[in-house]
Amino acid sequence: MIVVMRTDASPEQIEAVRAKIRELGYQDRPIQGVERTVVCVLGQVYPEMLDELSVLDGVETVLRVSKPYKLASREVHPMDTVVRVGDLEIGSGRVVVMAGQCSVDTEEYTLATAQAVRDAGAHVLRGGAFKPRTSPHSFEGHGAKGLELLARAKAITGLPIITEVMDPRDVELVAETADILQIGSRNGQNFALLKEVGRTDKPVLLKRGMWATVEEWLLAAEHIMTQGNHNVILCERGIRTFETATRFTFDVNAIPFVKRESHLPVVADPSHGTGRWYLVEPVALAAIAAGADGLIIEVHVSPDHALSDGAQSLTPQNFARLMERLDVLCQALGRPLHPAVGQAPSAARGDGQRP
Amino acid sequence: MIVVMRTDASPEQIEAVRAKIRELGYQDRPIQGVERTVVCVLGQVYPEMLDELSVLDGVETVLRVSKPYKLASREVHPMDTVVRVGDLEIGSGRVVVMAGQCSVDTEEYTLATAQAVRDAGAHVLRGGAFKPRTSPHSFEGHGAKGLELLARAKAITGLPIITEVMDPRDVELVAETADILQIGSRNGQNFALLKEVGRTDKPVLLKRGMWATVEEWLLAAEHIMTQGNHNVILCERGIRTFETATRFTFDVNAIPFVKRESHLPVVADPSHGTGRWYLVEPVALAAIAAGADGLIIEVHVSPDHALSDGAQSLTPQNFARLMERLDVLCQALGRPLHPAVGQAPSAARGDGQRP
Amino acid sequence: MIVVMRTDASPEQIEAVRAKIRELGYQDRPIQGVERTVVCVLGQVYPEMLDELSVLDGVETVLRVSKPYKLASREVHPMDTVVRVGDLEIGSGRVVVMAGQCSVDTEEYTLATAQAVRDAGAHVLRGGAFKPRTSPHSFEGHGAKGLELLARAKAITGLPIITEVMDPRDVELVAETADILQIGSRNGQNFALLKEVGRTDKPVLLKRGMWATVEEWLLAAEHIMTQGNHNVILCERGIRTFETATRFTFDVNAIPFVKRESHLPVVADPSHGTGRWYLVEPVALAAIAAGADGLIIEVHVSPDHALSDGAQSLTPQNFARLMERLDVLCQALGRPLHPAVGQAPSAARGDGQRP
Amino acid sequence: MIVVMRTDASPEQIEAVRAKIRELGYQDRPIQGVERTVVCVLGQVYPEMLDELSVLDGVETVLRVSKPYKLASREVHPMDTVVRVGDLEIGSGRVVVMAGQCSVDTEEYTLATAQAVRDAGAHVLRGGAFKPRTSPHSFEGHGAKGLELLARAKAITGLPIITEVMDPRDVELVAETADILQIGSRNGQNFALLKEVGRTDKPVLLKRGMWATVEEWLLAAEHIMTQGNHNVILCERGIRTFETATRFTFDVNAIPFVKRESHLPVVADPSHGTGRWYLVEPVALAAIAAGADGLIIEVHVSPDHALSDGAQSLTPQNFARLMERLDVLCQALGRPLHPAVGQAPSAARGDGQRP
Repeated sequence: MIVVMRTDASPEQIEAVRAKIRELGYQDRPIQGVERTVVCVLGQVYPEMLDELSVLDGVETVLRVSKPYKLASREVHPMDTVVRVGDLEIGSGRVVVMAGQCSVDTEEYTLATAQAVRDAGAHVLRGGAFKPRTSPHSFEGHGAKGLELLARAKAITGLPIITEVMDPRDVELVAETADILQIGSRNGQNFALLKEVGRTDKPVLLKRGMWATVEEWLLAAEHIMTQGNHNVILCERGIRTFETATRFTFDVNAIPFVKRESHLPVVADPSHGTGRWYLVEPVALAAIAAGADGLIIEVHVSPDHALSDGAQSLTPQNFARLMERLDVLCQALGRPLHPAVGQAPSAARGDGQRP
Repeated sequence: MIVVMRTDASPEQIEAVRAKIRELGYQDRPIQGVERTVVCVLGQVYPEMLDELSVLDGVETVLRVSKPYKLASREVHPMDTVVRVGDLEIGSGRVVVMAGQCSVDTEEYTLATAQAVRDAGAHVLRGGAFKPRTSPHSFEGHGAKGLELLARAKAITGLPIITEVMDPRDVELVAETADILQIGSRNGQNFALLKEVGRTDKPVLLKRGMWATVEEWLLAAEHIMTQGNHNVILCERGIRTFETATRFTFDVNAIPFVKRESHLPVVADPSHGTGRWYLVEPVALAAIAAGADGLIIEVHVSPDHALSDGAQSLTPQNFARLMERLDVLCQALGRPLHPAVGQAPSAARGDGQRP
Repeated sequence: MIVVMRTDASPEQIEAVRAKIRELGYQDRPIQGVERTVVCVLGQVYPEMLDELSVLDGVETVLRVSKPYKLASREVHPMDTVVRVGDLEIGSGRVVVMAGQCSVDTEEYTLATAQAVRDAGAHVLRGGAFKPRTSPHSFEGHGAKGLELLARAKAITGLPIITEVMDPRDVELVAETADILQIGSRNGQNFALLKEVGRTDKPVLLKRGMWATVEEWLLAAEHIMTQGNHNVILCERGIRTFETATRFTFDVNAIPFVKRESHLPVVADPSHGTGRWYLVEPVALAAIAAGADGLIIEVHVSPDHALSDGAQSLTPQNFARLMERLDVLCQALGRPLHPAVGQAPSAARGDGQRP
Repeated sequence: MIVVMRTDASPEQIEAVRAKIRELGYQDRPIQGVERTVVCVLGQVYPEMLDELSVLDGVETVLRVSKPYKLASREVHPMDTVVRVGDLEIGSGRVVVMAGQCSVDTEEYTLATAQAVRDAGAHVLRGGAFKPRTSPHSFEGHGAKGLELLARAKAITGLPIITEVMDPRDVELVAETADILQIGSRNGQNFALLKEVGRTDKPVLLKRGMWATVEEWLLAAEHIMTQGNHNVILCERGIRTFETATRFTFDVNAIPFVKRESHLPVVADPSHGTGRWYLVEPVALAAIAAGADGLIIEVHVSPDHALSDGAQSLTPQNFARLMERLDVLCQALGRPLHPAVGQAPSAARGDGQRP
């Protein structure tokens, strides 16, 4: 931490800053520049110290030198983290695709969508049982009944399940069905919830808060990791900007940036990141080209009957087309698609869709 | 709701949109313009309908005509809501000031700060027992012990208490001590928490999510109100923008705008809205000049020892100066300060509230 | 400037950074911290140096210590700058109001509006002859003919004129009529234009670019001042954020912040800063309460016939009401309205102010 | 255009809106909904009309149905525009790469960089002779001398030149050397400059204003096109958001969105869009995967000696690596790199610059 003094700071003010640093148990190193003095603080500083020093008289500003996150930092942990879900490896250099409905709705649609995404090559089935809805007058998900439907879809397709948990009181219940717990963007700094999922042993997909800097996103991961759960998958899903042509601005820069800053795997959500189904394919390809470890995509067998976010859901046909293009792209990039999981429980049905 | 067709939409596509509208149980009214056709939807539409219609072939976009919030809307409820806490009236045309520590820390500081803000004319004591902290390595509040300290401060000063609740599981506990429940900015769309406070009978101060549009903020209020609790106080606390000179950008426009859109009282938080103590006074005055019903201000007897947000806390001296300037301003604006509450137990001190 | 090394930087990398600093003619001061080394650069650094040092191997980041603006900085020039236009003093502690049409349109409207704002107490007449219009299909101003109309309005009312210049080739022409040259928000970093107005001796009102940080805004002022013209008036006019309820987000924080950072006077434009006429009064009062030295307001005798920005123009009645409320507010704040200028050249009419 | 009335609008207010619409020469079509009335306006509306109608009593808001741009719109002009520069075709389905220095500096560096980018397969040489610099204390380019250096580099490499023009007075001069005129982000709404380049017959690369919505960007293109020059190349270069980890937020969504909205070619600038050299390659690949027609990249033979933006420049080695990876990617996507241009004029000259 570096305390930058005002150009008109008096020797007494500089001395008071130095004394305060020593009082807090740190070493002080003043440097007299041409315009002003700066005082370096040596030792393991804590975040609040910035506030404590910046209120002192004669201080212009206080600059931080160290990263505020440790467990999530690649400086501390240089090797890539690989999150495992059964045979599936996320972050291993092979691209993983999670796909399915935004909200679990009818049994018919849920199972049909699950089958369709498995057939097209998805590795994980997504589906919302508990949905955060901006309006209280919107459909909020089927809750426990939705979880049962997901469990049935898993039994049939063999795909592991990712589903969102919104309430710390539901974590235990959701973790019974889910293979991966999802934290939604609006809960990106819901610390009570982050802690609770940090106490489970389930992988957590942590969506970036639509307002969160990369640093805050990594600190949210740190909240989970400090509870003992290091199986965190980061998910870029678009940030809020002035642009209204798309629902959010997908921050493609963040993908290579966070891969450099952190050892955690990063997946991309082009469905929420754009809000428009016709932008999902190009932005999905872009995210992978930028280095993402995987994708999470909304698919619905009948988007105009979807109970939420129909405008950003792909049809099974469009999803299958995306998977084909993705396959070619991933091979060109030298990071092929992950081998199939959920080996064809339907194969017994002799339906010819997968060998 | 109005469906805007593409200029090249075919008659069949237009007919399919009209049929879909009727299938959903609404009336359709097409209007043939010079460039394109629009189809008006008549009836009480629901939010998801926008998605359902926008995915149809030939549709350019779907425009919403109605507001998505009802209970919070001034169109539905033209009269100002006044939230009452004992003798205190928030939203009555008299300016109310809530002040105190960001985090409850030591007993000595807490009681001294409480006394100081009461003496300077504050109407409500603020103090955080549970604190949302961006970093898991930061001080997170004293929890239940903090609530006890607040209760003592209330007993001594007679001031009602506002304090934050972060976890739906804590609502009952916090409501035992708090006179006003505070929802913090990072929980501005934590729907599990919003519902839980909506089931209590305590007034709720709802801070705007730093990413939330005014519409989303009012929808968050609607989440609380649909559970039966209509005592919602809105709090503008700054939004996240590209400007980094200040911690957030205090959205002063939002104050008169939301007063026009909604009947709920609106208070301003210039401490978090600026993040720098020397900007608190000018922005506090600005918020009141723009029409805010009150303020919530951080004060600490020793800001450089505050366990959080010291850089934005006022000293008691600066707070007293602000109250004096505010008194003059409020009179000039014709909206005087609310009369004192917590009738001076220290005045005669014979009343049993302080030994 | 402070070079922060990576935690894994080698001694050779640190030495290379130090050598580079010395090669550039500066002194280097390394500080060995617990986690990493930082190297302080002593001397008058230049902005590009940040780039030159940050590309070196082993460097994590480079922090700037000094402000990049000098002429505009209060550290360098502690006394308030007062900009004088005839008898009018801007930045002297008395509040100045500029008002008039967004675009000069018909002679009838222009003169009627000019008379109305003078009668209500405005000190400067605003009016656009050259208008930046987002769409090429919109009205772009009357150009030279508009300037003539403004000159007539000045002759009749005695009010000095502020008008926008958009093209470096027009600066000389506009400066013949204008008493204050206005640089619009979209030209907030049009350096060719900034330089050109910096070569005149006319006061310049510099609107903040809707995307500009306070630092960039002050650097734009610096561009003007380095050419010799120190009569710069800063104008906060709203920034672009995610909020769409208002046209822009008026950054009220910036007013006290920039008054602290710079010695230049600051005025506020609540018309563009909100984009809605019914928000102009509350935000105007807020800006003054926050410390602004003046206001610039759109007024039109017939807003629904205005050729641009009718939705944010006040009627003369609303403007007169604002001036009355402002008068009371300014007195309460101890910063009264500036005395009237343009003393009734129409006084020949013998009345008073209007027949 | 659709006028949405307030729920409490009186019949007289509705009638006044209808009368105003007819007075303006349009047809009015009222629709009585459940909550409120909307009035559709039939005819070719102009943008200001929105303002004129929104100020009428009883009006809640006015919604636009048509796009404000025509010449740039794909609805009007469904076929892709291909911009030709000699043999080079931009927007033809083959990917084009422009590369070179941010600022033209020494002759040695300029020619070496030009040679290096040609050798690696770039199709156009970029280089700034006139540079917009945020700080007036920064290097602003060599001006006319820089243009001469670019002309020499063109003579040697055979590559066409793209260079920025900042001042309408320089357009003629710059157009003598440049094959493509570049409008920088800070001039993205400098309408005087846009018009001036619109009067030339040179292709114009129009960078998006860092604050501009896609709509405003297309309207800026429209400003150029209305002057007769339809050879506009759009360039996404990052927008300003709250994220500070990267210099700007590259808006990858905008690429497929604008390709759908407009027939103009779109290129991407990952150098400015990220501000960090190590993010250039992944974001360049992402932009192409998202559908961009080309790239513009900063390369410098000695980034730590670059006079501007060294931190975001690639070395020739890194650029060559990017071109190799790009080649593979483009083939996988079915949109191969454009054939080489500037066929080795130095080869025949036997001057030893290339073996």
